Amino acid sequence: MTYAAAMTESGTGAFADPEYHAAVVDLLGAIGYGQLSAFERLAEDASTAPGLEDKVEIATMACRELAHLNRLRDRLSELGVDPFEAMAPFRAPIDAFHAHTAPRDWYESLVKAFVGDALAADFYREIAAFLDTGTRELIIDTLSDTGHAGFVVDRVRRAIEADPRLGGRLALWGRRLMGEALTQAQRVAADRDALSALLSGGVDRPGMDLAAVGRMFTRLTETHAQRMADLGLAS
Amino acid sequence: MTYAAAMTESGTGAFADPEYHAAVVDLLGAIGYGQLSAFERLAEDASTAPGLEDKVEIATMACRELAHLNRLRDRLSELGVDPFEAMAPFRAPIDAFHAHTAPRDWYESLVKAFVGDALAADFYREIAAFLDTGTRELIIDTLSDTGHAGFVVDRVRRAIEADPRLGGRLALWGRRLMGEALTQAQRVAADRDALSALLSGGVDRPGMDLAAVGRMFTRLTETHAQRMADLGLAS
Repeated sequence: MTYAAAMTESGTGAFADPEYHAAVVDLLGAIGYGQLSAFERLAEDASTAPGLEDKVEIATMACRELAHLNRLRDRLSELGVDPFEAMAPFRAPIDAFHAHTAPRDWYESLVKAFVGDALAADFYREIAAFLDTGTRELIIDTLSDTGHAGFVVDRVRRAIEADPRLGGRLALWGRRLMGEALTQAQRVAADRDALSALLSGGVDRPGMDLAAVGRMFTRLTETHAQRMADLGLAS
Repeated sequence: MTYAAAMTESGTGAFADPEYHAAVVDLLGAIGYGQLSAFERLAEDASTAPGLEDKVEIATMACRELAHLNRLRDRLSELGVDPFEAMAPFRAPIDAFHAHTAPRDWYESLVKAFVGDALAADFYREIAAFLDTGTRELIIDTLSDTGHAGFVVDRVRRAIEADPRLGGRLALWGRRLMGEALTQAQRVAADRDALSALLSGGVDRPGMDLAAVGRMFTRLTETHAQRMADLGLAS
């Protein structure tokens, strides 16, 4: 879809509002840098894989993240901005998230790949509910999971069976991933006015009051807990 | 194509010869591990990219290598072998090649991505000429270039313009890549009887005599020199 089509489709003429335009650019930039960064981390994790088959699985996850990025780049260009400039403001918080959650071994990598990326996807999908249809569909498409959940669940469950102490360490690891994600999300919200304004709504756009923000975090936490349980881990 | 179809298509019934079967498995295993390994090195190179756009370009090259691997895996399974077992014997020589040619900076990475992978592709294409049609076409398809030659040529030429001394260093680097590739290729030829036998031909299969091997190396060297010239480098 072209920019002009997106303008028309938004119905409310949302893109005519410079603040809405800026918020969408911010959101796509954040998701885009998140995917590029996920590619890099997963590719790095591939180098610690215990065998060639595991290596190929996680490398394939890395490449699906990168493939999603291409569609976001195109849309950002249609919106009249340089995709890489749109990503730049999110480099520091996303890099900080990864620096604070560097996996110490293969199993921490797997859990991070599974719950970390899914958590980010849930969060962006929540925000997408406040956007025009075109942008919302693009975001939902590019966040579709990397299709390797079965592989991760199988590997982690087998490893915990073989060494039950690993379950305790990985449960703590899952909590740390959640905590770091919230910390960096708050930092982004504080720094990026357009994004925060988007969440609070506008004259002709629905937004979230504090109670709604609370319900969103409840949903995110519950889904996270379910994923941890799928891995056989307490949350 | 199924294994049975490959048997029929080969016409000469080449796959009925266990030595031919072993040679094809070796060749696909070598190419497959080469692509997995290229993915890993290019992904690592992406982490040293000077900007986000360059990072995405080289990450995309990495993922095309990985995508090619999937077709080789399928064919190896059709040939009744575990693809990862087929790759295993080539891990040591290919890892050694990369260990001896670890790029010291972004430009060495670019030159290696461009001339190293192309050199390997030329070599495998030469060997493919001695194979049944099905295998030959698979190899040629999976070696199709990663489509980023223009990007590498542009970046390297601009960098040399800005700092002509870089041209001298990168020219030496290109020679080192060629030398290491030949060293490891000889090691593989010495270790893998089926592959060497494939090159010398069989009762109903053409092969290469020493003069033909010489002509092959001449062709490889000339193509390498042309690629170096495209980069603005002496060879």
